[in-house]
Amino acid sequence: MHIRVINPVITTSWEQETLDAYRAAAGPGTEVSIVTLDWGTPSVEGHVAMALVAPDIIAKAIEAERAGADAVIVDCMGDPGVEACREAVGIPVVGPAEASMHTAAMLGHRFSVLTVVDSLIPYVEDQALRYGLAGKLASVRSFNIPVLDLASDDGATFDAVAAVAEAAVREDGAHVLIPGCTGLAGFAPRVQAELARRGCEVPVLDPPPVAMKTAEGLVSLGLRHSRRTYGRPYVAGARWPVPLPFND
Amino acid sequence: MHIRVINPVITTSWEQETLDAYRAAAGPGTEVSIVTLDWGTPSVEGHVAMALVAPDIIAKAIEAERAGADAVIVDCMGDPGVEACREAVGIPVVGPAEASMHTAAMLGHRFSVLTVVDSLIPYVEDQALRYGLAGKLASVRSFNIPVLDLASDDGATFDAVAAVAEAAVREDGAHVLIPGCTGLAGFAPRVQAELARRGCEVPVLDPPPVAMKTAEGLVSLGLRHSRRTYGRPYVAGARWPVPLPFND
Amino acid sequence: MHIRVINPVITTSWEQETLDAYRAAAGPGTEVSIVTLDWGTPSVEGHVAMALVAPDIIAKAIEAERAGADAVIVDCMGDPGVEACREAVGIPVVGPAEASMHTAAMLGHRFSVLTVVDSLIPYVEDQALRYGLAGKLASVRSFNIPVLDLASDDGATFDAVAAVAEAAVREDGAHVLIPGCTGLAGFAPRVQAELARRGCEVPVLDPPPVAMKTAEGLVSLGLRHSRRTYGRPYVAGARWPVPLPFND
Amino acid sequence: MHIRVINPVITTSWEQETLDAYRAAAGPGTEVSIVTLDWGTPSVEGHVAMALVAPDIIAKAIEAERAGADAVIVDCMGDPGVEACREAVGIPVVGPAEASMHTAAMLGHRFSVLTVVDSLIPYVEDQALRYGLAGKLASVRSFNIPVLDLASDDGATFDAVAAVAEAAVREDGAHVLIPGCTGLAGFAPRVQAELARRGCEVPVLDPPPVAMKTAEGLVSLGLRHSRRTYGRPYVAGARWPVPLPFND
Amino acid sequence: MHIRVINPVITTSWEQETLDAYRAAAGPGTEVSIVTLDWGTPSVEGHVAMALVAPDIIAKAIEAERAGADAVIVDCMGDPGVEACREAVGIPVVGPAEASMHTAAMLGHRFSVLTVVDSLIPYVEDQALRYGLAGKLASVRSFNIPVLDLASDDGATFDAVAAVAEAAVREDGAHVLIPGCTGLAGFAPRVQAELARRGCEVPVLDPPPVAMKTAEGLVSLGLRHSRRTYGRPYVAGARWPVPLPFND
Amino acid sequence: MHIRVINPVITTSWEQETLDAYRAAAGPGTEVSIVTLDWGTPSVEGHVAMALVAPDIIAKAIEAERAGADAVIVDCMGDPGVEACREAVGIPVVGPAEASMHTAAMLGHRFSVLTVVDSLIPYVEDQALRYGLAGKLASVRSFNIPVLDLASDDGATFDAVAAVAEAAVREDGAHVLIPGCTGLAGFAPRVQAELARRGCEVPVLDPPPVAMKTAEGLVSLGLRHSRRTYGRPYVAGARWPVPLPFND
Repeated sequence: MHIRVINPVITTSWEQETLDAYRAAAGPGTEVSIVTLDWGTPSVEGHVAMALVAPDIIAKAIEAERAGADAVIVDCMGDPGVEACREAVGIPVVGPAEASMHTAAMLGHRFSVLTVVDSLIPYVEDQALRYGLAGKLASVRSFNIPVLDLASDDGATFDAVAAVAEAAVREDGAHVLIPGCTGLAGFAPRVQAELARRGCEVPVLDPPPVAMKTAEGLVSLGLRHSRRTYGRPYVAGARWPVPLPFND
Repeated sequence: MHIRVINPVITTSWEQETLDAYRAAAGPGTEVSIVTLDWGTPSVEGHVAMALVAPDIIAKAIEAERAGADAVIVDCMGDPGVEACREAVGIPVVGPAEASMHTAAMLGHRFSVLTVVDSLIPYVEDQALRYGLAGKLASVRSFNIPVLDLASDDGATFDAVAAVAEAAVREDGAHVLIPGCTGLAGFAPRVQAELARRGCEVPVLDPPPVAMKTAEGLVSLGLRHSRRTYGRPYVAGARWPVPLPFND
Repeated sequence: MHIRVINPVITTSWEQETLDAYRAAAGPGTEVSIVTLDWGTPSVEGHVAMALVAPDIIAKAIEAERAGADAVIVDCMGDPGVEACREAVGIPVVGPAEASMHTAAMLGHRFSVLTVVDSLIPYVEDQALRYGLAGKLASVRSFNIPVLDLASDDGATFDAVAAVAEAAVREDGAHVLIPGCTGLAGFAPRVQAELARRGCEVPVLDPPPVAMKTAEGLVSLGLRHSRRTYGRPYVAGARWPVPLPFND
Repeated sequence: MHIRVINPVITTSWEQETLDAYRAAAGPGTEVSIVTLDWGTPSVEGHVAMALVAPDIIAKAIEAERAGADAVIVDCMGDPGVEACREAVGIPVVGPAEASMHTAAMLGHRFSVLTVVDSLIPYVEDQALRYGLAGKLASVRSFNIPVLDLASDDGATFDAVAAVAEAAVREDGAHVLIPGCTGLAGFAPRVQAELARRGCEVPVLDPPPVAMKTAEGLVSLGLRHSRRTYGRPYVAGARWPVPLPFND
Repeated sequence: MHIRVINPVITTSWEQETLDAYRAAAGPGTEVSIVTLDWGTPSVEGHVAMALVAPDIIAKAIEAERAGADAVIVDCMGDPGVEACREAVGIPVVGPAEASMHTAAMLGHRFSVLTVVDSLIPYVEDQALRYGLAGKLASVRSFNIPVLDLASDDGATFDAVAAVAEAAVREDGAHVLIPGCTGLAGFAPRVQAELARRGCEVPVLDPPPVAMKTAEGLVSLGLRHSRRTYGRPYVAGARWPVPLPFND
Repeated sequence: MHIRVINPVITTSWEQETLDAYRAAAGPGTEVSIVTLDWGTPSVEGHVAMALVAPDIIAKAIEAERAGADAVIVDCMGDPGVEACREAVGIPVVGPAEASMHTAAMLGHRFSVLTVVDSLIPYVEDQALRYGLAGKLASVRSFNIPVLDLASDDGATFDAVAAVAEAAVREDGAHVLIPGCTGLAGFAPRVQAELARRGCEVPVLDPPPVAMKTAEGLVSLGLRHSRRTYGRPYVAGARWPVPLPFND
């Protein structure tokens, strides 16, 4: 089985690290590859960025399918372009936020998402709503560190995430936590251990591995998204500044 | 007051007609202009099309603001790019679907949206959900005529719309109707009259005029969207095949 | 166009001021008139007051329609008698709360209503529920100053409103605010400016102008409420201590 | 224990029959009295009628409390004036619709209400919403016989009610039924038997006895409505064409 | 009328006290009996305990019906086995939590449940959801005293309950309170009085009497649960370590 | 990795077939074992049966954990005893219905469950509600063949399932289908193919393999259910007719 991870930004610096994280989560027979965007933004924070990365994400999904990939994962908690990709290709397309929220919903009464900046809170709440999980959402909290600054001071980032994690458990009644940025890949077990130390034992999900297991599962099961929800793209005659794979 | 209408496709054939419809709805002191996209798809049916038109819609909104427009209307019932535009500019950005759904909600117990093709039904239901109006939605029905064929046989289109309109009233309990494509501009009064003839007297909204009145109202009231919901765009360093106004 | 404002109480002291506020919001071609009740209560706080003002509000709406008014606004955030008026007359009847809540829902993720006294909080929450907007309501907060005392100490009232406004933004996640009493007409821009000074930049709606724009919009669009939701009144043979216009 | 039934219309013809029905349902130690309105409409169908009966219902509730009644029942499925009465008096005030809907919710998965005319369907759906029971409502169906015609042809009325009852069970999945007009008092067992004969065995509630048991229960338990929801009426200075008990 | 109370545990120490409490609430013509389980757990806190008490609760309900009981009450706020009993017998089966929540919903805007330990909070929230009352639930709070310790220090228990009761009113907006353990029978009036002293006048329900009044009411009304929701048990051929009444 | 499947009935006839189905779905490194109940019912249809199988399911889960299993699957679409098992053991416990509903929610707009008999419809609707997925549920339909008769006429069962499957798609708007009985294991691809032939191309999930992939995924990810939702069992002193593993 071959899973293609789309790094849905033009930033290449974390590409290898991301690939390693997905490979570590993959099962024995699973090949994992990664591709970074040619066009778009350095990070995905907000609706404008989401709009600028979507077209090339779709192109990369089409290329993945043509290259024989069995499923695509879009490595961003905004799940940018995911629904469009499901129209564009015939293989499963997995968003880490959607996969993590459904997994969290199975693990406990309510879950909280810990997002990077305040301005994304409405977006994440709308994701839970669209995914049909509003009733399972305890809260969305932000630690207010932009994506591109997450790695600059690992200790400060960890402290900030742990603080909002604890608040989500104690004040909002979260029973499961989702660090809401794939840039925090690997943080989950550390946060879970720290929370346990503080008397807040809850599962903390690491979205990239959850997305990998979801993608592998769908491929194994021979399932893909419903064509009644995601019809074939209707874009004949589109005009675009660079060649598009949509009209071929 | 100056309202800029964005024709969010690359199709220019209905530009003048669209402009005329918005001008007819505008108040005495309102200037109306229209702009068509340089990049994108001929029509907007589905998530891929939505993704391909969004970047240039945002560019056109920024240009409108720079040209002194007081508000922007994105003339499509998918409200494509509307949330991103609200990040990108400081003037009100109105989507005809959102404006029509809220107006319909004030006029009766429940409303139905009549959309062009079956594959858009989940999208329209998700719009009602995101706009907070799921409880006011009686149904979404489709008459299965693609946007670009709407004008090819006016009589057949009218009959098809009237048939689903009547079904929405009689079978789904709709008390207000919204023809869910701006390509049906002007159909509303004809459908309303035909339904009355069939014993189904309900208000039928014409989304472009509703959007115009909503835009004029927000400008008059000195209101714009909340920056807490729509933060400033965070796209420094974006890479794009043609010049982008975002990074200026 | 002629809009009739109903001052839905027997208090005449704020009649001229109210008329001025609505006229200031009206468009160039709009004539505005006002009428105060003959029977009812001095203010509308609670279900009993709501019941005592409703009959004469309906009478005044019928008189307005007979006098050629194109729409009616009931100037109270409880929207008293509004649904009954929609049965009684064939012109649009606008409630400031309903119009403001739908407008607020379009401007941001969630809105809060700031009401006069604690005992009205359940009523306002029920309004959001009935208008289909419960999912867009961040909170209802009260500043605990009865309607008839609002004007007695403008500074104290302003401070109290600003304090609950800030709490709604900071603690409840409100992105848009609605001062929930038409007796606070004109407060909105002052509260918005004060909140901005405190780092809480959010739109603050002034319900009477919002109601005026909604009424003008509906008249321009040729829309009225659905007769399927608001059937014709069924009150033949009613007995009442003073002449009623219902049975004519 | 003394329960006062308010016949919330000016029609006296069914007063004795109504009193008998409530007495038949009352426990051994319960005294039941009835009072008819001096002012209002002959029946209660729609918002205008609801507004015209409410003031005298409140007056009658206050008089009941002064006369030593332990609880008040407002004998109409629109529950007119019930919330206002809860402000006005210190004894429990029971609405047959609210009591029946909560009882039905305990007896099965979902219930349907069978109402008199189509134009009341939105009102009944809003009742379920306000009472917090929207998720338990299977449907509201109407048999389209106005209240004042219910008694004119008992057989035709029974057939019409049975037909919509069967449709509610077979097509809407109702597991419990509520005939939604107190003018159908006594119909419940006949409809239940007829439905059983048709293979649709479901409980059919008779709202007046349910209201009586609810009222007796609250009195026995020493409970009344929360003053935090229903504050004391705030109507000092009210002006009314006939003497009002509110200001005493 | 004969009401059988099932003490759904193997603990007999509170049997007489429980019987006395139910008898005190019963009407003049009502005979009350009680039965304690042969198999199960000493208290019911959590899903495992719920599973261990359910089989014998069902057996006891069947025996009650055979002994001529007119209704059964399962004396535990988890309502264990209640839905199964409704399949197993043809008489009404009342759960104190369900009956109390519906009664509370009629008495005020929102209610809170005060439960024994934190780990039951998700369970009680799910009860409100299943009973269709999630929208009426202000909060579930716990005072963290296990059931079997409730009686060990009455003063400490009372103080703990009163403290969370006050917090539910002041912080969560509860307008009605339900002490969520039948082991607190009799606490309600004391808590209500104490809260009134602290300025939080709200009704506090005592679930066992509420359940008794609900059971008596259903019997008087000749109602039982819908067979469409609770079909006849389908357990032919069951194998069980002790004789079961199900297969007779 | 070792996954223990619990066949939650006393019927052994399908044990080997069930084991084979789970093994076929398991990944290369996964060992699968199965255990059948000693006590309980032959099938699980309804609340009484659910109550009778739960205790031994819990015992079997405890034994599985002691035997070194990494996760437990309870092979029944009623997910009987699943929540109790999560209290009782420290390894993941997967219910096929919960796993399938969340997977279906990711694959399309709304899903339908096809259940065995009408009397289970309310139960399945309540499952969707408790799992937080009511908004994603298109419908629950039944083909009215009891579990123990499913295998008696494969062709008739297939035709019945296909018929309700098609109705769910065409009439209820289902975009994904879940055959709601593990006794239909293996039917999914046949139903999917037949529906495609009838013009209703939708994914049809086979719950046992979905449950296996979910269990394997959770084990791989090192996740288990939240102890804040599922506390440790509190059953010291339980009395039971056969030895219980709970008190060890």
